[in-house]
Amino acid sequence: MTEPNSPLVVFTPSGKRGRVPAGTTVLEAARRLGVDLDSVCGGRGICSRCQVAPAFGQFAKHGITSTEAALSDWNRVEARYAEKRGLAPGRRLGCQAQILADVVIDVPAESQLHRQVIRKAADARPVEMDPALRLCLVEVTPPDMHAPSGDLERLTEALRAQWGIEGVTISLPVLADLQTTLRAGNWTVTAALHRTSADAPPRITALWPGLLEGDLYGLAIDLGSTTIAAHLVSLRSGEVVASSGIMNPQIRFGEDLMSRVSYAMMNPGGAAEMTGAVREALTHLAQKIAATAGIDMDRILDLTIVGNPVMHHLLLGLDPVELGQAPFALATSEALNLPARNLGISALPEGAQIYLLPLIAGHVGADAAAVALSEAPDHSDELALIVDVGTNAEILLGNRHRVLACSSPTGPAFEGAQISSGQRAAPGAIEAIRIDPTTKEPRFRVIGSDLWSDDPGFAEATAQTGVTGLCGSGIIEAVAEMRMAGLLDSAGLIGSAAQTGSARMIPEGRTHAYLIHDGSASGGPVITVTQGDIRAIQLAKSALYAGARLLMDEMEVDAVDRVVLAGAFGAHISPLHALVLGMIPDVPVEDVTSAGNAAGTGARIALCSLAARRRVEALVRRITKVETAIEPRFQEHFVAASAIPHATAPFTQLRRVAPLPDAMFNAEGGRRRRR
Amino acid sequence: MTEPNSPLVVFTPSGKRGRVPAGTTVLEAARRLGVDLDSVCGGRGICSRCQVAPAFGQFAKHGITSTEAALSDWNRVEARYAEKRGLAPGRRLGCQAQILADVVIDVPAESQLHRQVIRKAADARPVEMDPALRLCLVEVTPPDMHAPSGDLERLTEALRAQWGIEGVTISLPVLADLQTTLRAGNWTVTAALHRTSADAPPRITALWPGLLEGDLYGLAIDLGSTTIAAHLVSLRSGEVVASSGIMNPQIRFGEDLMSRVSYAMMNPGGAAEMTGAVREALTHLAQKIAATAGIDMDRILDLTIVGNPVMHHLLLGLDPVELGQAPFALATSEALNLPARNLGISALPEGAQIYLLPLIAGHVGADAAAVALSEAPDHSDELALIVDVGTNAEILLGNRHRVLACSSPTGPAFEGAQISSGQRAAPGAIEAIRIDPTTKEPRFRVIGSDLWSDDPGFAEATAQTGVTGLCGSGIIEAVAEMRMAGLLDSAGLIGSAAQTGSARMIPEGRTHAYLIHDGSASGGPVITVTQGDIRAIQLAKSALYAGARLLMDEMEVDAVDRVVLAGAFGAHISPLHALVLGMIPDVPVEDVTSAGNAAGTGARIALCSLAARRRVEALVRRITKVETAIEPRFQEHFVAASAIPHATAPFTQLRRVAPLPDAMFNAEGGRRRRR
Repeated sequence: MTEPNSPLVVFTPSGKRGRVPAGTTVLEAARRLGVDLDSVCGGRGICSRCQVAPAFGQFAKHGITSTEAALSDWNRVEARYAEKRGLAPGRRLGCQAQILADVVIDVPAESQLHRQVIRKAADARPVEMDPALRLCLVEVTPPDMHAPSGDLERLTEALRAQWGIEGVTISLPVLADLQTTLRAGNWTVTAALHRTSADAPPRITALWPGLLEGDLYGLAIDLGSTTIAAHLVSLRSGEVVASSGIMNPQIRFGEDLMSRVSYAMMNPGGAAEMTGAVREALTHLAQKIAATAGIDMDRILDLTIVGNPVMHHLLLGLDPVELGQAPFALATSEALNLPARNLGISALPEGAQIYLLPLIAGHVGADAAAVALSEAPDHSDELALIVDVGTNAEILLGNRHRVLACSSPTGPAFEGAQISSGQRAAPGAIEAIRIDPTTKEPRFRVIGSDLWSDDPGFAEATAQTGVTGLCGSGIIEAVAEMRMAGLLDSAGLIGSAAQTGSARMIPEGRTHAYLIHDGSASGGPVITVTQGDIRAIQLAKSALYAGARLLMDEMEVDAVDRVVLAGAFGAHISPLHALVLGMIPDVPVEDVTSAGNAAGTGARIALCSLAARRRVEALVRRITKVETAIEPRFQEHFVAASAIPHATAPFTQLRRVAPLPDAMFNAEGGRRRRR
Repeated sequence: MTEPNSPLVVFTPSGKRGRVPAGTTVLEAARRLGVDLDSVCGGRGICSRCQVAPAFGQFAKHGITSTEAALSDWNRVEARYAEKRGLAPGRRLGCQAQILADVVIDVPAESQLHRQVIRKAADARPVEMDPALRLCLVEVTPPDMHAPSGDLERLTEALRAQWGIEGVTISLPVLADLQTTLRAGNWTVTAALHRTSADAPPRITALWPGLLEGDLYGLAIDLGSTTIAAHLVSLRSGEVVASSGIMNPQIRFGEDLMSRVSYAMMNPGGAAEMTGAVREALTHLAQKIAATAGIDMDRILDLTIVGNPVMHHLLLGLDPVELGQAPFALATSEALNLPARNLGISALPEGAQIYLLPLIAGHVGADAAAVALSEAPDHSDELALIVDVGTNAEILLGNRHRVLACSSPTGPAFEGAQISSGQRAAPGAIEAIRIDPTTKEPRFRVIGSDLWSDDPGFAEATAQTGVTGLCGSGIIEAVAEMRMAGLLDSAGLIGSAAQTGSARMIPEGRTHAYLIHDGSASGGPVITVTQGDIRAIQLAKSALYAGARLLMDEMEVDAVDRVVLAGAFGAHISPLHALVLGMIPDVPVEDVTSAGNAAGTGARIALCSLAARRRVEALVRRITKVETAIEPRFQEHFVAASAIPHATAPFTQLRRVAPLPDAMFNAEGGRRRRR
């Protein structure tokens, strides 16, 4: 028992307080009071992770007056550390400084193991650092012939005695390095300990001789059908130190998911080929991002991966054939922990571990689960509709009471595929466009330049890339602008030159196209929006809207409070144009926000926090899954959503801010034209 | 609650009894009363593992009178089974027959999951079958788009609901087969469930569509430096269905352990080469033994492996260099569970699991632990000395109070190496020899024939093989016989022709040799025992005796109650000759027994029983290890043990049954000869 007149210590910012026997170190006091104070060396005064800033003076708030005599003077260990490595003014090593009298101790953010990391987005909750990995320095008893035991058993015993850690395991390849590492470190080693959950026994996943300086890192990977994106994240600070992406090499087996599933069905060994390709790509990506950041590969010991069900299964070496046909049965849907070597990602260290987020349903993958983790509809008071737009759109609808999910087969039109002048987002692609409602003249911006096409210097700025086509956001804006400029009626018919009074309307068989840019004089392409393009966009946006509407039916609501556009593509969609197109239900335009690559963010959150992994697993279990393929109302919603913005929904919020002329063109050139 | 007038059921042979509601099936009654009754199909009447033999009549012992009406008539399931598959007279399917009135039910051995297997040796305790693997038939709910979940999650749920099994895991390669197996079995599959301990969550290690007929098998492997021996064992009956052995291909890197450790030290990548060689050999051995027994490889799902520390480490891919120098530090000493694929034993099914027994010390391996498990000195009232004779001798001394262990560097002389006419045990090798004390003439037997050399027909019987040399037991018997025939004095000097009166004593420089067989007339070898051979055997046997004596010192005893000779070689050593040589301490010759390949038997016991694995782990932890290399008294004991049988120990028990003439020859031809 601590005597009542023992020193009182107050830790900030936690506010935790208590009395400790005089002479107790700050680190020991923190442990006793449950204060989060980091340490790798276990109090040996060499890692400096336990640095604290004592505060002296009168603290009315805490009822404490403290003087510099409240802490012991520097001892030899602390003086040696300060001399060799430097110690900022006002800082002390928590494991060396002893508490002698009442004192206030501030624990700076970098000394907190479970610090909170504030995400960029203003509305998002902070992420608490709670990574699967931690570092522990241990001094291992050398072998003794009189009491023979394995080096591993003595390491295990040291972890128990010095850190209170029980039941550690180790994999063979890490064990193979144990004896040389122990001897290189003169029986002192730093162990990386990985846990799959807070109460699971840890696994030794890496060992270094002596004290390991610096951080460990993790990779958060968004495994998309088209691109594979990765963030390299410090597992100490939670900061992204590098981001990188590569094309998914499976594209050579099929552009979209269904063509890859077909490839697996039609070609014996086809699934294994695609598995090999994506694993090799992950190896390259890991090497690339480590080189970019200048981080040794052996520091990258934890990975989180998200992806749609087909990507997920192919990565794991599971044949995706069942995902190509009803009832779309997953081999497994739950979150998985496995060693990276089991997936043959050979560039990573032997001990690297992977966490795959859970899948929601046969069409709604771990990427959607990651979006749910990142955007947290289950913590929202408002009813939020979250759409992750890609080849398939994953749709979440929910609030803190209930969360629904579905997938909708939008097809690749939103990515510029199946569009006559469409292309992938790349320099030269038109990404934004405005059409003057009076002159019907377009102006546009291409990827690679911030200038609009009517700005001075545009030609020079784009001379390198040219103007090459329409990327996903470009085609969406073009169709929406045509609608607002009266060049396109609500049924999706393009007007003729006569009907619209614009020479840019050029006949194409029995339909018309809108000429955006004629580059033929300089050998470039003629960029138009054709009637076929409009139909492709209509199909895609109807599917997206119908999926959202189906969830609203299930939720028994007619409106949502806000819409979040997620996905790399979502970041580039203008909310106004998305509303004009009727991709999403009618909400005030300011309530449509972009979450950027929310799946990647979710992967990053899971990488930083075991608690977040438990959170997404629990959330996925309670999500109500809606299968669009078997819902009879889907077709009905789909047909009604074909009109631009919609055949029956009034879109009154939208009409307050956007012109939606009542033009009506028919295929024969306007015989039924009214007004 | 069961009413007091409910039927009373008594199960034999367990004697377990209790009342169950009328209509309860025998299988269900067995479960409620804790009676060991097997079932794979979970009561569906298709596996017939729950067959029982009801007994009718008056059973005074049990206080029961039972009639045939005590059990329900055959229902359709049972009738169908009997018709299709046959059911022996008096047998019922426990899962179908309902208990209607008081009855005695006998559970035959083959219907007991945990049956006791009686080992051959009369003194050994029976082994209870308690294998790591069990089979469970489950009916899995087909996928449902309205409630999407993975096939694995529905399999897991079925195991929980139908078998009460929680927390199952699966490895990726087994998961990869799940979807096709479920569909091939029309949603009914047999799962092989592997546990590392009775309370560990099981792992699905194999799946078959529908009901799997027949048994699962395991391999018990004794990984020796010279040979690798394996037993293929039914995990249902515990029976050995095939045994096989191959040479350890590491021999090409070095004959004995130390030369292999040297190879690893001197050649970069040398350890990995030897690891690869032994893993490949295990693959071949598994294929060979499965082919011999006509068993599908996919049935072989569990392995136990024992071996000395160097073999153990090389198999695991751990560099053995530390085992070649004091303090002989093991990388790890505890028992290990790991997937066979982690050791690259590619012929085995993906899910096969390996259990490696624990190591006792840097020189005393898992093979010695297996001997301890098999011979169970810790269950012996008498003080037992157990020696496993090979290149190194592992020695155990103990009783139920205390067990000691050490290793002694006997060298390879006992295996016929470093002996002038020595050879491996192979057809043509002299394995037994007798020397007439009067005529000094030898007669002998060679491997490949049961005839003695003075039997009629010996020449014809050995014409194929010839008489090629002395194997281990041959040289031991030869030396002991020479000592008893007065051809060799207690100091180990061979007498001359003059000293012994035998023309078979032929001069070799300043020493003499004893001529056993002269095959030179037919182009065969001249087989002799030279003075150098005697010295080699003296070194080996002194090391063995000194090791045993060191343990006796530690135990503070001067005699042991019995001696067990273990090892493949131990099986061929004649107890009398071992005593004459002074390999082992003096005991009545009838108290020297052979345990055959006790290490292999220990591996087999561990294969059949999780409880045995826990037993050997607990035993190894409590064994006191004695390191001969650092015990000063070892050298003293070694010198005293050089004489044959011993310089100071009287060997009074031996002298009662064996002549030990007091001859004394010196190097100059008998000038100091007395009597």
